[in-house]
Amino acid sequence: MSSDAHETGTTPGDGGAPASETTSDTTSDCVFCAIADGRIPAQVVAESERSVAFEDRTPAAPVHVLVIPRRHAATVAELAEASTDDLADLFAVIPEVARAKGITDYRLMVNSGASVGQTVFHAHVHVLGGADFTEASMTPQA
Amino acid sequence: MSSDAHETGTTPGDGGAPASETTSDTTSDCVFCAIADGRIPAQVVAESERSVAFEDRTPAAPVHVLVIPRRHAATVAELAEASTDDLADLFAVIPEVARAKGITDYRLMVNSGASVGQTVFHAHVHVLGGADFTEASMTPQA
Repeated sequence: MSSDAHETGTTPGDGGAPASETTSDTTSDCVFCAIADGRIPAQVVAESERSVAFEDRTPAAPVHVLVIPRRHAATVAELAEASTDDLADLFAVIPEVARAKGITDYRLMVNSGASVGQTVFHAHVHVLGGADFTEASMTPQA
Repeated sequence: MSSDAHETGTTPGDGGAPASETTSDTTSDCVFCAIADGRIPAQVVAESERSVAFEDRTPAAPVHVLVIPRRHAATVAELAEASTDDLADLFAVIPEVARAKGITDYRLMVNSGASVGQTVFHAHVHVLGGADFTEASMTPQA
């Protein structure tokens, strides 16, 4: 799936993020900002003052957690520019996610831009694990 | 492929990293440290005082660049713990890579651990682009 519903379980029309959310650059209509501040519930795996990690509701792997900054930034590059502390915290939370999920190895994925699969324009890192991956699986597939 | 040769073009026996390099935690026998300090040549795309970005020699996508810290750290998590400045710089270089390669959208991938495809134990971010990706392609494949 390549819709916001994939990541949040919300669907257009149920009060969740409308399709136009994908071009949001403000916080009021951003579904991940809503998860960060509790307006939309999520199954939180780990969190800090700056970051929240929660279960992807339609996981692509046995372990599939999303880690987001509480600060709204459209992409990880924008986050890095806005706050190195927020960026560092995001990556500090990831090992906590691994411990909470009982895994040692994981693949991180960040989709930056619509054409590579970014559907929510609030920076997020996919933490994937619980299965073997190979480098060959980095090849793009439709 | 899931060998060091995939990422560096070196093969065991040619003076490059031996297979045991995958468990290296020192810099002397680390192939990416050798690229960072010029002992092994690479096609550099962008660089800074703290980071180096270079072409993956057996690309998995039309654009496939590896971004590494000059500091030796086995994983991105270890890098984040060792130096937030180095981590931030790594992510600051990525947009430069995109500009140099003429792309706006890209997928970042980090393999942390052998079972998810990490073959060189010096932190590195794969920058993949020049093709369309979907979220479905995050699913593990053999």
